[in-house]
Amino acid sequence: MPSISTRGLAMPASPIRKLVPYAEAARKKGTKVYHLNIGQPDIPTPESFLEAIRNTSIKVLEYSHSAGNESYRKKLLGYYQKFNIQFKLEDIMITTGGSEALRFAFMACLNPGDEVIIPEPFYANYNGFAVEAGITVVPVTSTIESGFALPSISEFESLITPKTKAILICNPGNPTGKLYTLQELEGLRDLVLKNNLYLFSDEVYKEFCYDGASFHSVFHLPGLEENTIVLDSISKRYSACGARIGCLISRNRAVMESALKFAQARLSPPTFEQIGAEAALETPDSYFEEVKEEYTQRRNLVVHALNQMPGVFCPLPGGAFYAVVKLPIDDSDEFCQWLLESFSFEGATVMLAPASGFYATPGMGKQEVRLAYVLNQEDLTKAMTCLAEGLKAYASYKANAIVK
Amino acid sequence: MPSISTRGLAMPASPIRKLVPYAEAARKKGTKVYHLNIGQPDIPTPESFLEAIRNTSIKVLEYSHSAGNESYRKKLLGYYQKFNIQFKLEDIMITTGGSEALRFAFMACLNPGDEVIIPEPFYANYNGFAVEAGITVVPVTSTIESGFALPSISEFESLITPKTKAILICNPGNPTGKLYTLQELEGLRDLVLKNNLYLFSDEVYKEFCYDGASFHSVFHLPGLEENTIVLDSISKRYSACGARIGCLISRNRAVMESALKFAQARLSPPTFEQIGAEAALETPDSYFEEVKEEYTQRRNLVVHALNQMPGVFCPLPGGAFYAVVKLPIDDSDEFCQWLLESFSFEGATVMLAPASGFYATPGMGKQEVRLAYVLNQEDLTKAMTCLAEGLKAYASYKANAIVK
Repeated sequence: MPSISTRGLAMPASPIRKLVPYAEAARKKGTKVYHLNIGQPDIPTPESFLEAIRNTSIKVLEYSHSAGNESYRKKLLGYYQKFNIQFKLEDIMITTGGSEALRFAFMACLNPGDEVIIPEPFYANYNGFAVEAGITVVPVTSTIESGFALPSISEFESLITPKTKAILICNPGNPTGKLYTLQELEGLRDLVLKNNLYLFSDEVYKEFCYDGASFHSVFHLPGLEENTIVLDSISKRYSACGARIGCLISRNRAVMESALKFAQARLSPPTFEQIGAEAALETPDSYFEEVKEEYTQRRNLVVHALNQMPGVFCPLPGGAFYAVVKLPIDDSDEFCQWLLESFSFEGATVMLAPASGFYATPGMGKQEVRLAYVLNQEDLTKAMTCLAEGLKAYASYKANAIVK
Repeated sequence: MPSISTRGLAMPASPIRKLVPYAEAARKKGTKVYHLNIGQPDIPTPESFLEAIRNTSIKVLEYSHSAGNESYRKKLLGYYQKFNIQFKLEDIMITTGGSEALRFAFMACLNPGDEVIIPEPFYANYNGFAVEAGITVVPVTSTIESGFALPSISEFESLITPKTKAILICNPGNPTGKLYTLQELEGLRDLVLKNNLYLFSDEVYKEFCYDGASFHSVFHLPGLEENTIVLDSISKRYSACGARIGCLISRNRAVMESALKFAQARLSPPTFEQIGAEAALETPDSYFEEVKEEYTQRRNLVVHALNQMPGVFCPLPGGAFYAVVKLPIDDSDEFCQWLLESFSFEGATVMLAPASGFYATPGMGKQEVRLAYVLNQEDLTKAMTCLAEGLKAYASYKANAIVK
């Protein structure tokens, strides 16, 4: 029997999904599980998206252009102009989700063995794409105490080696909810230019900025035209995770020409969802205002409730719909599993994502969990009560375990 | 300005698509272009597929399972049973096109530097996925004179090195249309077992076998359970190229578990097209019978017309909807470009794919082109007349060029 590959072994299992069997077992026991572990919003997808797909008159479902439908790309230029970002048509390529955009960026820009510096905690699947591309993730740690502010530029600099080729950020951040300030981004700009690096920016949560704060794209940084590559997706923007439509954007012609060859190899992104995504560009601003208001209320509810719990600390996230929370526990993997396996309160329990999977530095995040506030406020309230009770019960359980 | 990657440079441009600018220029001059260069069928997609998508009642477009919708996978078990292939649910994973299935297979099974033996000419995008995975394609040449029969097992054996990890075949073949016999496959089985190799089989054209010949899957070979991985797609089966729905199938648990981690990293395949693909499983056999009859007629028309042309040789393809043709020319890249740039007959010309892009051995295929018989018979007849005239005119053009 032939053996599987080294990278097949090195590929990390999803920290968000690895507890799924325990959740399934809990449900089978009749326990209600509040899913705060995954960024799957409950917000309805805009009707314009769904209606456009229902109304297609396709007879032969042909390949689309490898870079995506031109009509959609043209309209996207107008969409980004609303964010004060100007592109040309050839700067944008439609991808099969933001995931593929990052994969193309890694493939087109980086060689096996190259290093990419990423502030941790970071979106766990970056690890997977790094394994595929054979590149090394070099974490620079941001702390919960600072609200996951960008680490100092000198910390980045201390990690730069001859193999460093890029910095990857997520803004607003998954899992942190951190919205970077213009000042933070300007520090990165100088660093990137000084060291001739790429700056990859995952901006899929840019619609989700709270408290009147402005979103700053890396494309707002002058002088970085050849260095910046933005990864975007409609998954969160239109609550359309199942669409698998994203895009890769760069003004660097060589990068886009190289990425197009990878795009041609896989032929095209899915057709129906491109049609939906194009139609969804007509979504009125009121949709986003309502969604933002809803998420703001959810965030406030969750963060307030968490910080009321003894020994719990949760900084206020400025964007996205996640929070990383410090809990009075030693091992969040164990705690999250225990919540599903051994605990319920009024017939319910909570599923959280252990934060260890979002750190590349071994041992980090063991007292932290990520939660996604993607449930309605009534359920969130119940989930927070449930978590508070869970923490109490877990403390007793651990105390008894020690006594035994 | 940071440089792009070595693999970004090494990535081949699509040989099928590289002549597109010349075709566009021809169209702008008012010339009709018969597109025989790309495997984009004109056959209508089954109404069941399109109807299911139009009738979805999705409110929130959620991620699907990373391995694809379970309801779809369950029904696929029944679909493969019709081909006398028995699987369990966990043996099948839905992928974003057959392309992704091959990418996952390469990633899960092969390390950078590993060698894969592929009979040439082969589907050109295999090169792209090999570059992504950092593996080396080792071609074993099949000849047009033999109708692209599988090269002898001793030829395969002479290419095996300690780095050889797999053999990749396409059956029925793109670009050759070759349908492998059971005997050919049994030779491969012995070779694979003796050398502990993987056998990847691209079987996306299995519905397209002509003249009453039987399709033999590598899954029909006993004793290869742990070695075989099949790549499939609905693109050609249902004339649904734009759907981007394929699947990866293997009874090797370690491979499937590893592939699932790559699948989880990219989250899920597109939702709507999975729904369409599931509904399309109800497509009556009469659809395929009609399609097969149509392609048989087209094939006969094209092959007959080609073999009437002086100096032209086209073996009769047993499957798929391609033919590789030997022409009385020295350089098919130049000829195909000339057809678009400098020739027209009764206001029309023909777009073909130079075969050089389907060979890995330098210099091979320069007298050959691939054509896809994906147009209706009236257009195919005109296209063949056009090609015959083009060959005559090209011979004069070349003769004059020599005189000058």
